[in-house]
Amino acid sequence: MKKISINTSNFGYPMPIVLIGTEVQEKPNFMTAAWMTHVNLEPSMLAVCLSRDHFTSGGIRENKTFSVNFPYTSLAIKTDFCGMNSGKETDKSTLFTVFHGKLKNVPLIEECPLCVGCTVSNIYSVAGDMLLIGEVVEAYSEEKYLTQGSPDVKKMNLLIFTMPDNRYWSLGEYVGQAWEMGKTLPKEG
Amino acid sequence: MKKISINTSNFGYPMPIVLIGTEVQEKPNFMTAAWMTHVNLEPSMLAVCLSRDHFTSGGIRENKTFSVNFPYTSLAIKTDFCGMNSGKETDKSTLFTVFHGKLKNVPLIEECPLCVGCTVSNIYSVAGDMLLIGEVVEAYSEEKYLTQGSPDVKKMNLLIFTMPDNRYWSLGEYVGQAWEMGKTLPKEG
Repeated sequence: MKKISINTSNFGYPMPIVLIGTEVQEKPNFMTAAWMTHVNLEPSMLAVCLSRDHFTSGGIRENKTFSVNFPYTSLAIKTDFCGMNSGKETDKSTLFTVFHGKLKNVPLIEECPLCVGCTVSNIYSVAGDMLLIGEVVEAYSEEKYLTQGSPDVKKMNLLIFTMPDNRYWSLGEYVGQAWEMGKTLPKEG
Repeated sequence: MKKISINTSNFGYPMPIVLIGTEVQEKPNFMTAAWMTHVNLEPSMLAVCLSRDHFTSGGIRENKTFSVNFPYTSLAIKTDFCGMNSGKETDKSTLFTVFHGKLKNVPLIEECPLCVGCTVSNIYSVAGDMLLIGEVVEAYSEEKYLTQGSPDVKKMNLLIFTMPDNRYWSLGEYVGQAWEMGKTLPKEG
């Protein structure tokens, strides 16, 4: 066997990277986050893990709402800026063009090809961090990013993040279709 | 504004895709999952969302352990097979070469460039599904995938998944370095 034991905190894999938006002290603020996953489809629900002491985290606890904005690769610099600079010291309210949808206090980013607004369903405490469970109550994209009515990940050219090397990436080549490729194997495995 | 409202359950973004391993009725079983994220680094912890009625879910509730195996692009067919066929009807125990690390009843996949073994820290119920919180207690890779001692996502060529188009992808081009790119913007935003 060629496998070797590695440090349990020192492995990475491709993750989505998003800008979490909320209003703090009546101003839009955005922080960068990569620890996010869907947890349900109907209704659409996301789990987002944030440190308890972020400026954004206080805003979310207060508002019980937040946005998740998916940047494309050309927004990498601004995305990185939002991850490096806390709203405690840096006013990020004019970094993007902000729009609002149904949720009045949820700032959405016009420059992002995909933006969703969430209400907080639950907040779990995991190892001292906040694991937010949000229900997606609004979602926005643009006509030019759609294929057959759905936002197309390739057209959106969404940014991808890996740790612990801390790199941003684009989406690569199409490998194949799920619930199709597996049909080529016999059922016995 | 060009933004249009879209269905809240009908948007996707690049996600990791993994094979969750556990032993059920003393046999290794693997299921495909994409709803996974890190939730802590020290100790390393993952959240994985699974339907309660999966064959795997029963095994995890019983064993209180599971593995997360990260397939590369050439394993797309087998990965898809594991997502299409439940262990209730299909014996997947011989689909991969299985090895064990520290955790005796946690099957790890030799063919995957990155495999981790977890103990269950907590199970939350979210919209009827199981949101597993696992602590990573062992991690394995191979010398050929390492760069400066860490598994290199580009060398590993890990598989990426998107919904609702249900497509597998490879990782694309390097866009830039996090905690570096953002330095080019003035602090005023």
